[in-house]
Amino acid sequence: MARTQGSHSDITGPRVREAALALFARHGFAAVSMRQIASAVGVQAGALYNYTPDKQTLLYDLMRTHMEDLLAAWDSQTPTGGALGALETFTRFHIRFNTRRADAVFVSYMELRNLSPENFEVIEGLRRDYETRLETILRQGAREGVFAVSEPRIASMAVIAMLTGVNTWFREQGRLSLAEVEAIYWEMVRKSVAA
Amino acid sequence: MARTQGSHSDITGPRVREAALALFARHGFAAVSMRQIASAVGVQAGALYNYTPDKQTLLYDLMRTHMEDLLAAWDSQTPTGGALGALETFTRFHIRFNTRRADAVFVSYMELRNLSPENFEVIEGLRRDYETRLETILRQGAREGVFAVSEPRIASMAVIAMLTGVNTWFREQGRLSLAEVEAIYWEMVRKSVAA
Repeated sequence: MARTQGSHSDITGPRVREAALALFARHGFAAVSMRQIASAVGVQAGALYNYTPDKQTLLYDLMRTHMEDLLAAWDSQTPTGGALGALETFTRFHIRFNTRRADAVFVSYMELRNLSPENFEVIEGLRRDYETRLETILRQGAREGVFAVSEPRIASMAVIAMLTGVNTWFREQGRLSLAEVEAIYWEMVRKSVAA
Repeated sequence: MARTQGSHSDITGPRVREAALALFARHGFAAVSMRQIASAVGVQAGALYNYTPDKQTLLYDLMRTHMEDLLAAWDSQTPTGGALGALETFTRFHIRFNTRRADAVFVSYMELRNLSPENFEVIEGLRRDYETRLETILRQGAREGVFAVSEPRIASMAVIAMLTGVNTWFREQGRLSLAEVEAIYWEMVRKSVAA
């Protein structure tokens, strides 16, 4: 049976999230109304409330989904080659995952200030979980004698900041392919924590 | 002669800039009105227009001043010890300068999207100038044989992203002093570009 065009069943999560993410990234959470999001999805504002109770919940869902997807995608990787192999896998994975989600990365950083305290705690917890994945690799490498880092937690935040920075300048049509960018960053990351 | 309280002469640049910066960082440029900024300064909205023609100009001035101050502060440094000494000076300078200006750094990154095309060009130019300072150090170090970087421009952006990331987690009251943080990052930066 054909679905009625514009019915509530059209308010699917992915369409709402995609529209909200693009609008938040372009104008900022505080400047975007639920009406604008509904308009971008092509439905009445009232219909949007069948999907999400309010704008805060929508922002929180976007940021939680982004972090959960990141963690799940990393946890499905199967690095080989000890800590060195794991660090190379992490470096290339982080760059690939984040350059493909520029809006989500930007909103996740920028709109932390607009989360309610309880929602902020959850997102920060997920962020810490991700940093812990890298910290574990750095500690493993120190035990193997391939890495030397005085502060593994801070080193993991430093590496993640460096890698996420690719988003501020990388363009698909640019001089360097993503594989070349990965190789340049991997060389720097590898040396930055080398024993 | 005593100045009249609340007179136009009270609308000094620093007070307006400080109030606007705090509000833009907290709520985002698009969500803040000139009326709110005037209220934070303690004057009528009309008085604000004696200082700046519009909100776009105010944002542009904030970002331009931040970048010009950064460039002037760096250019007044007098590093010794060749490229290695210059890189250490740059690393410590960048962390110290930016942790003291968290709102300006946040707004300068986040609100690029809200600059008019011509204003964006100027700010991007200043940002490129700053990256060039570091790129020059990396190229000098390569000639001296102390650094080995395949892409000095990208390496400079990677290092700057890593160092600016300190702002996302450093707290004055935290476990580590700023001097200790500088030392940890300097070790990583030094190794990341080492020959």
